[in-house]
Amino acid sequence: MIDLRSDTLTRPSAGMLAAMVAAPVGDDVYGEDPTVAELEERAADLLGHESALFCATGSLANLLGIWLHVPPGGEVLCDSLAHIARAEMGAHGALHGVTMRTWASQRGRLVAQDVLSMLALDCGPYLVETSAVEVEDTSNFGGGTVQDVDEVTRLSGELARLGIARHLDGARLANAAATTGLSLGDYGRLFDTVTLCLSKGLGAPIGTVLAGSAADMARARVQRKRLGGGWRQAGILAAAGLWALEHNLPRIGLDHASALSFARAVADRVPSAVDVDTVETNVVLLETGDARSAASACEAAGVRLSVLGPHQLRAVTHLDVTARQCRDAGAVVAAVLSQAL
Amino acid sequence: MIDLRSDTLTRPSAGMLAAMVAAPVGDDVYGEDPTVAELEERAADLLGHESALFCATGSLANLLGIWLHVPPGGEVLCDSLAHIARAEMGAHGALHGVTMRTWASQRGRLVAQDVLSMLALDCGPYLVETSAVEVEDTSNFGGGTVQDVDEVTRLSGELARLGIARHLDGARLANAAATTGLSLGDYGRLFDTVTLCLSKGLGAPIGTVLAGSAADMARARVQRKRLGGGWRQAGILAAAGLWALEHNLPRIGLDHASALSFARAVADRVPSAVDVDTVETNVVLLETGDARSAASACEAAGVRLSVLGPHQLRAVTHLDVTARQCRDAGAVVAAVLSQAL
Amino acid sequence: MIDLRSDTLTRPSAGMLAAMVAAPVGDDVYGEDPTVAELEERAADLLGHESALFCATGSLANLLGIWLHVPPGGEVLCDSLAHIARAEMGAHGALHGVTMRTWASQRGRLVAQDVLSMLALDCGPYLVETSAVEVEDTSNFGGGTVQDVDEVTRLSGELARLGIARHLDGARLANAAATTGLSLGDYGRLFDTVTLCLSKGLGAPIGTVLAGSAADMARARVQRKRLGGGWRQAGILAAAGLWALEHNLPRIGLDHASALSFARAVADRVPSAVDVDTVETNVVLLETGDARSAASACEAAGVRLSVLGPHQLRAVTHLDVTARQCRDAGAVVAAVLSQAL
Amino acid sequence: MIDLRSDTLTRPSAGMLAAMVAAPVGDDVYGEDPTVAELEERAADLLGHESALFCATGSLANLLGIWLHVPPGGEVLCDSLAHIARAEMGAHGALHGVTMRTWASQRGRLVAQDVLSMLALDCGPYLVETSAVEVEDTSNFGGGTVQDVDEVTRLSGELARLGIARHLDGARLANAAATTGLSLGDYGRLFDTVTLCLSKGLGAPIGTVLAGSAADMARARVQRKRLGGGWRQAGILAAAGLWALEHNLPRIGLDHASALSFARAVADRVPSAVDVDTVETNVVLLETGDARSAASACEAAGVRLSVLGPHQLRAVTHLDVTARQCRDAGAVVAAVLSQAL
Repeated sequence: MIDLRSDTLTRPSAGMLAAMVAAPVGDDVYGEDPTVAELEERAADLLGHESALFCATGSLANLLGIWLHVPPGGEVLCDSLAHIARAEMGAHGALHGVTMRTWASQRGRLVAQDVLSMLALDCGPYLVETSAVEVEDTSNFGGGTVQDVDEVTRLSGELARLGIARHLDGARLANAAATTGLSLGDYGRLFDTVTLCLSKGLGAPIGTVLAGSAADMARARVQRKRLGGGWRQAGILAAAGLWALEHNLPRIGLDHASALSFARAVADRVPSAVDVDTVETNVVLLETGDARSAASACEAAGVRLSVLGPHQLRAVTHLDVTARQCRDAGAVVAAVLSQAL
Repeated sequence: MIDLRSDTLTRPSAGMLAAMVAAPVGDDVYGEDPTVAELEERAADLLGHESALFCATGSLANLLGIWLHVPPGGEVLCDSLAHIARAEMGAHGALHGVTMRTWASQRGRLVAQDVLSMLALDCGPYLVETSAVEVEDTSNFGGGTVQDVDEVTRLSGELARLGIARHLDGARLANAAATTGLSLGDYGRLFDTVTLCLSKGLGAPIGTVLAGSAADMARARVQRKRLGGGWRQAGILAAAGLWALEHNLPRIGLDHASALSFARAVADRVPSAVDVDTVETNVVLLETGDARSAASACEAAGVRLSVLGPHQLRAVTHLDVTARQCRDAGAVVAAVLSQAL
Repeated sequence: MIDLRSDTLTRPSAGMLAAMVAAPVGDDVYGEDPTVAELEERAADLLGHESALFCATGSLANLLGIWLHVPPGGEVLCDSLAHIARAEMGAHGALHGVTMRTWASQRGRLVAQDVLSMLALDCGPYLVETSAVEVEDTSNFGGGTVQDVDEVTRLSGELARLGIARHLDGARLANAAATTGLSLGDYGRLFDTVTLCLSKGLGAPIGTVLAGSAADMARARVQRKRLGGGWRQAGILAAAGLWALEHNLPRIGLDHASALSFARAVADRVPSAVDVDTVETNVVLLETGDARSAASACEAAGVRLSVLGPHQLRAVTHLDVTARQCRDAGAVVAAVLSQAL
Repeated sequence: MIDLRSDTLTRPSAGMLAAMVAAPVGDDVYGEDPTVAELEERAADLLGHESALFCATGSLANLLGIWLHVPPGGEVLCDSLAHIARAEMGAHGALHGVTMRTWASQRGRLVAQDVLSMLALDCGPYLVETSAVEVEDTSNFGGGTVQDVDEVTRLSGELARLGIARHLDGARLANAAATTGLSLGDYGRLFDTVTLCLSKGLGAPIGTVLAGSAADMARARVQRKRLGGGWRQAGILAAAGLWALEHNLPRIGLDHASALSFARAVADRVPSAVDVDTVETNVVLLETGDARSAASACEAAGVRLSVLGPHQLRAVTHLDVTARQCRDAGAVVAAVLSQAL
């Protein structure tokens, strides 16, 4: 079975497991786990910030990042395809009282002017003011779309000038950076807070880091506890994250090549299913008739995809599938989808 | 002073006050105020629903309407200019844990297909599903824009088919109905819940009615109490509402003619300030240089306007200003804005 | 029918109605209603504070008072019989994220040391700290119990020393003051915020004032809007409140005498139903067998009581019942309860 | 250094680490981690319930357990010393809108009648009704107090009869069971939901299981995701939990003997610091003058204690300290406290 449902499926490698076992640990609620501390320092450095916080999930890291910037009743602006809007179960509203307005985009691609035109500023005590803007890079539901660096830079600068906070959902920031050639720190410095997921393309079993100022991270640590996310000997997991940053970060571009070969194999036979030019990183969105039945047929033929909508499938390449497997999977999926037409 | 800041500024007339004093009252928390009951029955009839609830404000009525349909963590879709998104202080998120995605529009005008393309349906336990769609008619921040009835009807039908709840913010529904010639009930029946504000163009001092099914109104009554909105001898205010429905509802179209003459007076001299074709009801949006200083200058010259944004002013006509006052006010504003250029 | 279910049942008198009709009004959301302003100034003076805010209900005023002092996740201490704990539908937690710990009492009577021993102070980032203490005077569910002034004074002083905020639920503070001979201001100055209900013993149709510092009232005004409580021409109701303060406040002690004569009439015949010594103000709690059936029987005999629990009834005297009616009602209730034994 | 601050400080043993490395894992968000599934089945069996859910922390498990039973605005009753009231940062109110009333106790010991007398039942739409009662066994802030089984049984039966939900915070349930000789299942079956912490006396690095009905666990799984607690390859941690249940559960009573010898060593020299009769499990509360300076002096002498209040210290015995170390630590602490007198 070639499993392309998500890059969250990766299992820790032998080397990673060895690092986990060897790591010194302590009680992180007391701030005494040396491996957690090492990961947080390393991540802060990489992301161009003072401090970082190791969280169990990307959703938790985003919850904290937005919470730092937006009071109850305040507003965050984001893409209507954003993970925080679509895939975090309304937690920002449900748990933190945050409200959202969303912009439309082509495949999740940011246009700075569209965002700036939505800002609510200086509008008195009885209108909602914009507290923060959130950007996701790459855009998951956009199909692994890499943000245009000029647009992000322009938006970031303008927001800084206006005093509006900026949060970057970097669930797949490593994929974006591998494509643009920027460093993670180049990205991180454009935002007040930034996340980096360790358990997607980077292959750690569990965890996302949130980076920002030391003061913000101290506040986030307290709120993390309130959310039930203050774990104990987390150094075991942090060790996996450190190993992932050292060994898996440099190779993440390989997943993009695999995704492209998968997409080409599909498009060669079923051009209507995917436009190869839209495959920018490790995510491939496929259009089909009935997505659920197509996914079942693919699985019967040895390839697992995820269903995103009634007519949309998603394939994601990752550490645990080879380039050849991805190409083969493309052929399998092409055969299924051609019959589905 | 001609005060065009808002149609909320109206003061009760002598006839209305007499009706208020004469009304029998009781304790509405116990469900024993006969005048409140009469207003709620009358409003339910007018709006084409089983039952209604008399609320202190339109914000409260919207809070309850959305709450009825959207659980904590659930999603409501609305225009990014919607009053519930922009002007209710994020209360839907802050108090009820509701999340929003918003669509873009031209001057608040609904396009059914744009909304339908945003729906999140059948997406499993871990994605936000759309619980409700909200429409505002007329659109306040759009500039008193009247919704296209065909678009509203198409949207309503499609949502009903999909099992998605529909809420209509009818803060100025009387203005919309006066323009399209539809009845309030024609509108109300297209939605699961609908509000009608009594204290804007209708001239009552306080109050908005929410209408819907009897079961929904019973639930809303309990939540109204939780929000601190369960008042006592409210029949005094309900009497004003009944008087307004009888005497002021039929004349509301006069405010639209006044708005048009105001706008024409401005446009004749300063065409860049307002496009007369966009004046559909009792709201006129004006574009200018520095809105705050322009508003101050207008006030010094005897006309009050409200400031909506750095370059935007709003004039609203209502019961307490005559057609002639509005035309005169247009001339005053034109003089100020022409000097501001 | 003699209706003793609650002192919220009073209807506005002719004099009060005349004052309401004559009052100048404006849009209170814009801060322009002169009669609201007059009531807020008068109430602030009476209650010994800088500023006040006129709210639709006592629940709303308490919601705002506690919200001013307790952040989400923070703690307020109160009696386990407190109205904020028992009768406001969990709104402080549900809407404002406040948590509570409660103390036990005899009939709602405060013992300062019991409260002080519960305070959570200086306990680091991961324990809940006490943000505020709430006192209710008189205690409604305690049976109209008047707080011991020495205990309240001692508690207030100690809390001030420790920097812990103090809120007084004064739904029936006028009753307490009439009993102890203190002024409302004597009470108000012992607390950071204090409410005074105008629509119970004072006989206004709608409304409670919240008093505190000017800065706190400004913040509360904004949150009142978020809760849907920012009404428009509320001067009509404020006029009733001003009339009530002038005409009904001085006479409120008469209700206490009526309550005592009611209680004596019951106790004479059914000593187990009520201990006359516990009747301190205008509330009488009665113990019986099946409370619901006893209430029905009383109503059939011309007296309405409210049911507080399976074996508990409550009678409340007020403006709209005379001393003689209360004595007669006591005889009626005595007859019913003696048969119920 | 002998570290007695908490039993959360334990580090995984070599055997536990080996089990972790060897465990098969998968993506638990997709419900595909076999080791998580095994732990959840094992824990459900042990605790006498249909199903279980593996959570990152005890706070998260309690958040979910209470959330299952108490809607926004609903009420849970608990001890005023309860961990959910004192040490979870007000999360039940802040995140889930739950309100609390609390009872007083001697050292956290439950008296069924005290709880039953606080229940709010059948009280109509406008009063808070009791949705759930929470019990903590052993009571942490009570000093490791073991609940009287007869009281718990009586309370549980009465609540079941009344239809009120019951949640057991079993952070240290293994300690209670070791003392009373009951099985974990004997306890679990008295409650609708029960937690068991794996990272305190049981020595796993991270994790608590929540057990209950299959339907409740399915709902809790969704809410866990909303709280940012839906982790990925958690089987690595679940393996530690399984190892702990097999190897460390049987030996937990040894910690009680160590605690007693520690307490005796203190009491022999400083009788006022601790009443040995109150040491029931692995927690020892010590009374002293200035707790902070005493803790510093102890640490300088090689023993770490935690500060619970201005005059209260806490020692907790656990897997990583031997009986002899505990006795020696008692002597050290005795020496410090005797000088502090």
